[in-house]
Amino acid sequence: MPSPIAFVSRTTETNEAEWIDILSSALPNETILPIKAMTEEQRAACEIAIVANPDPTDIARLTGLKWIHSLWAGVERLVAELGPTAPPIVRLTDPELTRVMAEAVLAWTYYLQRDMPAYRDQQEKALWQELQYRHPHDVTVGLLGLGALGSASAERLRHAGFNVIGWSRSPKILEGVETLSGEDGLTALLERSDILVCLVPLTADTKGLLNADRLEQVKKGASIINFARGAVIVADDLLKALDAGHVAHAVLDVFEQEPLDGKSPFWQHPNVTVLPHISAPTNRKTSVAIVAGNIVKWRETGELPATVDMARGY
Amino acid sequence: MPSPIAFVSRTTETNEAEWIDILSSALPNETILPIKAMTEEQRAACEIAIVANPDPTDIARLTGLKWIHSLWAGVERLVAELGPTAPPIVRLTDPELTRVMAEAVLAWTYYLQRDMPAYRDQQEKALWQELQYRHPHDVTVGLLGLGALGSASAERLRHAGFNVIGWSRSPKILEGVETLSGEDGLTALLERSDILVCLVPLTADTKGLLNADRLEQVKKGASIINFARGAVIVADDLLKALDAGHVAHAVLDVFEQEPLDGKSPFWQHPNVTVLPHISAPTNRKTSVAIVAGNIVKWRETGELPATVDMARGY
Repeated sequence: MPSPIAFVSRTTETNEAEWIDILSSALPNETILPIKAMTEEQRAACEIAIVANPDPTDIARLTGLKWIHSLWAGVERLVAELGPTAPPIVRLTDPELTRVMAEAVLAWTYYLQRDMPAYRDQQEKALWQELQYRHPHDVTVGLLGLGALGSASAERLRHAGFNVIGWSRSPKILEGVETLSGEDGLTALLERSDILVCLVPLTADTKGLLNADRLEQVKKGASIINFARGAVIVADDLLKALDAGHVAHAVLDVFEQEPLDGKSPFWQHPNVTVLPHISAPTNRKTSVAIVAGNIVKWRETGELPATVDMARGY
Repeated sequence: MPSPIAFVSRTTETNEAEWIDILSSALPNETILPIKAMTEEQRAACEIAIVANPDPTDIARLTGLKWIHSLWAGVERLVAELGPTAPPIVRLTDPELTRVMAEAVLAWTYYLQRDMPAYRDQQEKALWQELQYRHPHDVTVGLLGLGALGSASAERLRHAGFNVIGWSRSPKILEGVETLSGEDGLTALLERSDILVCLVPLTADTKGLLNADRLEQVKKGASIINFARGAVIVADDLLKALDAGHVAHAVLDVFEQEPLDGKSPFWQHPNVTVLPHISAPTNRKTSVAIVAGNIVKWRETGELPATVDMARGY
């Protein structure tokens, strides 16, 4: 019997128990324990931690830890809190999560292209008025970030007929998509996109990426969808750009502080759609299968999938 | 020079002038005149009428009329008003219109599947709450009508991963779609659909098709999208089904009277999305090209595309 796996999170006890339950079913040869239920001896012998927003002091108590599996794809907080000396981190890369995100990008792109927020406003005023239909070919969707999520989204948008352009930090080739990179590439993307979709990971480079200067470069009347992380956009600068009518509408699924403060001006802003971080919810079934597969493989072969580059941050 | 073509409509003069302008550019060898500008001699010699909601008494004044081209796909009013002795009617079948409608079906299916109305309500209350994500495989979309619009919509929905079933009056085969027909088939479709999409033409058979009895057969908690004609659903019966919570949400783009009366309870109903007949707006450029092509072909060969079956109504 191998040493127990630690489950480390800051979630509720019920939620933790549910996760451990599903993980244990998927890993019948393993013992998975919440860290607070482990003895000192078990903590010292523990080689693997499965984490969901863990307290870093808990991780430090696992003195023999070989590696960490994050239940989430976004690991910016984990990287920041554990620092460069942390053991290797495997983040969740779930094709199902990618599919759901690409679906969300298409769904909320339609939401904007087909003027759903404007028709809703008209409905409130009992106003019957047709708005000019925009053919998807005439709508340029700019993807900020071309990793797994950006690439899958590009594919969906192209199939739906949108004109898709994409930006990544380093140059990237994507079939049927005009790709841009670097500082000048970012400027070009902002200037040309009718709908700008944020899908970049949160790193030191992307924190506050869309600030007042960058938002000024955004095409007048364009809309923004943020499915990445709240901190990628400077909230106050976005509010100013919305109030000035420079940015027509923002669909925000992520915020610096979540849940979003009840007093945040985003809630009542007429040109903002607030979503409670639902663009691509974790699918417990598929994600647990992937985590289990990675653990079984490591036990058998000592091999890990690609781990997080702590300098790059993802 | 052939005899002039009559343009017959009840639209505004400006709108009529715009149409005649574009039609004339596409048909440089034809003279197109608004009926009120035609002499008695011209009216008698006129072989072709291009119509958009024409006054039937105007049509009756074209005593030598060979055929009528409708600028619209929906001809139920034309059929009803002109009656069985009318000359052959060609209705507009525009692939671009079909594309836009299929796009609308997918866009508003996502609107419901991704809970956009519910999240909007939560936003108004500054409520941060994740709703259960539904995988498209677990969402059955039932298409009422499997003509050009229904078939194209089925294709889009299937590609997006939805479970698609469809109903038509007479049996029909569609790849990858379970098709139903007849009375029992309709009952089955209503009982099984999570999202019901109306795309049937309005005929004597489909008028009031979704009445209280039929709405009772709808799966509890299902939603309805009506992109067909308002009269396909009995408005009062739908309101009752919505008020009872039996139908969760209705996306209504069409109404018995359009524009929708400012006093209609649909405007303010919390579970209704009112759209001003915009699911598939006529594209003047593509539709004029099709009308022109049909007229040129008839002048050259005497052949017409499929004409409306006056008994069937479409």
